[in-house]
Amino acid sequence: MTVSRLLKDRVRYAPYLKKVKPVEELIPLFKDGQYIGWSGFTGVGAPKAVPEALIKHVEENNLQGKLRFNLFVGASAGPEECKWAEHDMILRRAPHQVGKPIAKAINDGRIQFFDKHLSMFPQDLTYGYYSRNRTDGKILDYTIIEATAIKEDGSIVPGPSVGGSPEFISVSDKIIIEVNTATPSFEGLHDIDMPVNPPFRQPYPYTAVDQKNGLDSIPVDPERVVAVVESTQRDVVGPNTPSDATSQSIARHLVEFFENEVRHGRLPENLHPLQSGIGNIANAVIEGLTDSSFKNLTVWTEVLQDSFLDLFENGALDYATATSIRLTEAGFQKFFDNWDDFSKKLCLRSQVVSNNPELIRRLGVIAMNTPVEVDIYAHANSTNVSGSRMLNGLGGSADFLRNAKLSIMHAPAARPTKTDPTGISTIVPMASHVDQTEHDLDVLVTDQGLADLRGLSPRERAREIIKNCAHPDYQPILTDYLDRSEHYAKLHKCMHEPHMLKNAFKFHLNLSEKGTMKVDNWD
Amino acid sequence: MTVSRLLKDRVRYAPYLKKVKPVEELIPLFKDGQYIGWSGFTGVGAPKAVPEALIKHVEENNLQGKLRFNLFVGASAGPEECKWAEHDMILRRAPHQVGKPIAKAINDGRIQFFDKHLSMFPQDLTYGYYSRNRTDGKILDYTIIEATAIKEDGSIVPGPSVGGSPEFISVSDKIIIEVNTATPSFEGLHDIDMPVNPPFRQPYPYTAVDQKNGLDSIPVDPERVVAVVESTQRDVVGPNTPSDATSQSIARHLVEFFENEVRHGRLPENLHPLQSGIGNIANAVIEGLTDSSFKNLTVWTEVLQDSFLDLFENGALDYATATSIRLTEAGFQKFFDNWDDFSKKLCLRSQVVSNNPELIRRLGVIAMNTPVEVDIYAHANSTNVSGSRMLNGLGGSADFLRNAKLSIMHAPAARPTKTDPTGISTIVPMASHVDQTEHDLDVLVTDQGLADLRGLSPRERAREIIKNCAHPDYQPILTDYLDRSEHYAKLHKCMHEPHMLKNAFKFHLNLSEKGTMKVDNWD
Repeated sequence: MTVSRLLKDRVRYAPYLKKVKPVEELIPLFKDGQYIGWSGFTGVGAPKAVPEALIKHVEENNLQGKLRFNLFVGASAGPEECKWAEHDMILRRAPHQVGKPIAKAINDGRIQFFDKHLSMFPQDLTYGYYSRNRTDGKILDYTIIEATAIKEDGSIVPGPSVGGSPEFISVSDKIIIEVNTATPSFEGLHDIDMPVNPPFRQPYPYTAVDQKNGLDSIPVDPERVVAVVESTQRDVVGPNTPSDATSQSIARHLVEFFENEVRHGRLPENLHPLQSGIGNIANAVIEGLTDSSFKNLTVWTEVLQDSFLDLFENGALDYATATSIRLTEAGFQKFFDNWDDFSKKLCLRSQVVSNNPELIRRLGVIAMNTPVEVDIYAHANSTNVSGSRMLNGLGGSADFLRNAKLSIMHAPAARPTKTDPTGISTIVPMASHVDQTEHDLDVLVTDQGLADLRGLSPRERAREIIKNCAHPDYQPILTDYLDRSEHYAKLHKCMHEPHMLKNAFKFHLNLSEKGTMKVDNWD
Repeated sequence: MTVSRLLKDRVRYAPYLKKVKPVEELIPLFKDGQYIGWSGFTGVGAPKAVPEALIKHVEENNLQGKLRFNLFVGASAGPEECKWAEHDMILRRAPHQVGKPIAKAINDGRIQFFDKHLSMFPQDLTYGYYSRNRTDGKILDYTIIEATAIKEDGSIVPGPSVGGSPEFISVSDKIIIEVNTATPSFEGLHDIDMPVNPPFRQPYPYTAVDQKNGLDSIPVDPERVVAVVESTQRDVVGPNTPSDATSQSIARHLVEFFENEVRHGRLPENLHPLQSGIGNIANAVIEGLTDSSFKNLTVWTEVLQDSFLDLFENGALDYATATSIRLTEAGFQKFFDNWDDFSKKLCLRSQVVSNNPELIRRLGVIAMNTPVEVDIYAHANSTNVSGSRMLNGLGGSADFLRNAKLSIMHAPAARPTKTDPTGISTIVPMASHVDQTEHDLDVLVTDQGLADLRGLSPRERAREIIKNCAHPDYQPILTDYLDRSEHYAKLHKCMHEPHMLKNAFKFHLNLSEKGTMKVDNWD
């Protein structure tokens, strides 16, 4: 077929130009039940043209529920995965997802979803763990990967995310490349470590955030590339939730805490590399750092958002590395307008590297993430509302919290609802689902205050969390739970972590029955 | 004082001989509220003479509850820590403990105990996290360390465990060395990596279990050594629980599983380095491997028990490394009788290294540990019976399970009690305490069978666990719980991990009220 001028500019390996095809021609390749890998991470860098063509095919031929895939993406993909969910095109999905239609399909029981630590998911896929029921020995039938350029050796230059693409490509039977000509090339921004499995693994050599050791593109066996298509749709990221009084209060407590750690010699003046999640609290924390006196900061994280650009611009941030740069349209514009500057201070790696315990621990990362709820003993729920309803998945929260030098969770003390103006308490007697254990949390901070849990026994932690972090409306209720649990535990000689199992979920049951977590009494 | 001939032989650094003291002279050094580090790990290599002298001092002067310490040991120490607990000499304890008196004191609420991943505990101590409330800036007042020899430079050759001693010594204000002349010298068996904190950490260079890179003794500033005492008490380890029909059945399922993994190319013929916990199931698994056809096995673990000697002797095991070699008297005898042979195939490292995520993951370790209970969705409780009563602590279970290539838990399907011949079910609707999350478990095995959970959604896992692992008496009860939970979740659109929160702990409540987990009905 005719190849556009733009596409020709991006594809520097001539044999691929013979493989350029209109997306419609690829439809017959896809069969019900196949195992498919997509590039993409946190809504950027995912394929768009082929998934859209398949949606159209399903719509036009009423194939909803008849053309379904085992879909693996590094984390969440773009709006296309939501449409796949709406059209019942997903049989199985891992290890993360974002978007109402896909969460709905999971919670309706239509998609078999499992969430897995983002650093482990790609390696476990390459081990053949997720395809162990296949009889043909294959792992992935197709990987559809978005590229922003193809180098002379046929290797792939990804866009704004690396995610699990190196692993997917290494174990995929066939590969389809979508070259995105609507977005500028990201060439030079990546540092790719291709997977090596035990017993042949070597140490990752990185001892500082700004070191590069890998390749600047993903090598691929050209024989396995069955098609190249042109994609002309840019990534679309919704606006960031702005910070508010609550998230600013959280950020203030945290900045004070960091200042105190520096004063006591437990952190250096430029802190350690920061990891920060997504959302308005994360943004407020970065804003708080932007306004603080910290200088020469570094970032070792999973996702970079717009707020980090401000931190670069005011000179506080020296270098940042992640597996995805998830910017709004305005953010990307600013990024490309200042490419020469930003590209020297930024590097994208595979999620196996960005989230690797080896590196998080060696570098002494400071990890900050937002939970659904945390209990009085510091177990945190990151995934399932009231124990059962999936939100987005675990993501990299546990990769970072388990291995960081400082493991911090931040959340509002309460989240207002229609039926309760105070709202749902983030602090509960017992977490209805545990993703992060009591052994993994150093610091908990809400708009009410900060609880430093390091070295405390469970009962000491409970007093500290209730006093410093719980909403005042919930403090007496939680204290009453703790007092009664201790009374019971004293009698039964189980004072390590006192609970009343019959009442442990009364907050959640009360919410479901009466619309509030404010329990009248514990009898 | 006069120095014994035996002691002179062991201490090759002359200035220490001037510091040799009778233990009684050291008593005045110890004050209520001090922070004390001990060597030792899983009951071997802990100091004996000084702790015993302090017990005598407390007994003779009725100082119970008046001379109390913040006591830090790499994991569990020997019988001395139990006596300290009996005499109310422990104010605070971390990160692990074994022995009825100490567990009793924790569950009575007399000791503030916190359990922490064994790989992280020593580093967090060096960060000053556990002494952050001290006003004098010190971390440990004294470290009491058992040595089996002192080298010419004053450095310490430990005995059968390394544990957290390198870190303790690095941050201890003063050091007391107990040279044990009753046990042979372990010189040549250790590989010590001294702690380096961020941002100065380098990669651990090990890419195979038999590599050594560190020192063969623990360096120490002689100025900080305030006393050397002779200790003449050997370690005393109780007999190992022999395997029985239940544990042999578990071992059989596991060996079959390994054979199948090799057949499908997911494991090499000599497997990957093995980690195995303590107890009769662990012993049965090692016995099972001894009788199997696997050859050239290697071990990367936390503790070596007698059963590993058999694996060496039958030629199946090439090399083993751990942080502790916890042998019975007969085991140690065999070990020393064949020192030349065993010492070439064995290496003891610090617990920060033996349990390090970096190395466990790089080497692709196969981790096997025993839980208290596991729920239908694969969350495991390793520490707290019925949510509140502390057993021994987390130990290294989560260091290994989180980072292993294969994360395996093994347990009997049920444990008989006085009130129920079937006994307590290991499989419960919801774990009453979570130490290992659903994201960390690949395989669950009981005497009933094996559930391969890799790549399964929570609801798929639940069916597999109930079908393959639960005791037949509990299968219908658990299936009923799951069916009803799914029915409820379908209505409420929370089908990811269906639970009935009001009934989630009914197994535990029923046990406490009626002496059995056999729930009559779920209404």
